[in-house]
Amino acid sequence: MVNIRLPMGLAARLSGYLAILTQSEKSGRTHISSKSLSEYSGVNPTQIRRDLSAFGRFGKRGVGYNIQFLIERIREILMVTGEHNIALMGAGNLGMAISSSSIYTDHGFRIVAVFDIDPAKVGRQVGDIIVQHVSELTATVPEREIVLALLALPATAAHEVTESLIEAGVRIIFNYSEALIEAPAEVVVHSMNPAGELLHALYLGQR
Amino acid sequence: MVNIRLPMGLAARLSGYLAILTQSEKSGRTHISSKSLSEYSGVNPTQIRRDLSAFGRFGKRGVGYNIQFLIERIREILMVTGEHNIALMGAGNLGMAISSSSIYTDHGFRIVAVFDIDPAKVGRQVGDIIVQHVSELTATVPEREIVLALLALPATAAHEVTESLIEAGVRIIFNYSEALIEAPAEVVVHSMNPAGELLHALYLGQR
Repeated sequence: MVNIRLPMGLAARLSGYLAILTQSEKSGRTHISSKSLSEYSGVNPTQIRRDLSAFGRFGKRGVGYNIQFLIERIREILMVTGEHNIALMGAGNLGMAISSSSIYTDHGFRIVAVFDIDPAKVGRQVGDIIVQHVSELTATVPEREIVLALLALPATAAHEVTESLIEAGVRIIFNYSEALIEAPAEVVVHSMNPAGELLHALYLGQR
Repeated sequence: MVNIRLPMGLAARLSGYLAILTQSEKSGRTHISSKSLSEYSGVNPTQIRRDLSAFGRFGKRGVGYNIQFLIERIREILMVTGEHNIALMGAGNLGMAISSSSIYTDHGFRIVAVFDIDPAKVGRQVGDIIVQHVSELTATVPEREIVLALLALPATAAHEVTESLIEAGVRIIFNYSEALIEAPAEVVVHSMNPAGELLHALYLGQR
């Protein structure tokens, strides 16, 4: 296992490739060209070839990269093998969409707890899980070995919930809300930016 | 208005900054430092300063960038001023979450039509809009001047719906599903990659 610190941009791109390669494999493919990978990822083919040449094997001309080989190598390099227990914060529409999606389970992410503050949602069943009140967070995080929390809640609730998560010992927060979240240096907050991506799509399409 | 073709990475980053700056302004701020913008965007501060120096004015030391000024300049450069009519494809949990979010309306995106194929959803009201059957797409796209479609549907339905959208004249497709979509060169398909981003968050938090 290569255990060096990857440049920030490279780690982000490899993570993106890994998700795309996994989807490709599920759809029955065994090989993928840098051109296809470029179309799906939005990264230019030259950059892709440069990123993947680090693995010591090049894609064959006319055949492309071996998908299974790349998946295994990238997983090792990113150290994202194994299972990762997630707490889903928010049992609204977005939370329900996330919990019913298979794209997270494909990568070893397991939602092991769902929290909300709405009395109408607490106690309800989401998949196999009973929605708990946020007040149970401190006990639940160590009990279910939760390493990552996914925020699928209104921006107004995000800051308070983030504080509770940090107090409960969660060190990785994946922010699906529109809130701008600051956290201590030892906590990783990674935010989705769908509005930014939509603006980028509009830019690309309007030229 | 600067009407040059921006490098691919720069356009993506500026789109991301624009969404974050808009959120910052909404929360009542007038200025932002490159450090804060870095924390929210995941782009390193040096890159941010380089990207924004192109605007001819630098952030003041200790004060930071003027948010309103930057928003206006970036909007012009990306040519994303004005209103942009959207068709939302899918009235499930994800579609409902998207339609109730304000982050799109902040940037002039207006959902003017919602489509589904599920008879239980067609005819229902989502906000001010009645869910239509996908078969009405061809008539509705020109009628409501739809420039962009947002896919919030299962991967299995994504390819067929994409074909219908292209036939109906939509040239920008924002893919929120996990499907890998290929399209003709004149159509822009931009895909969200939440699994890729989650893997990146895990990588960042595990070191």
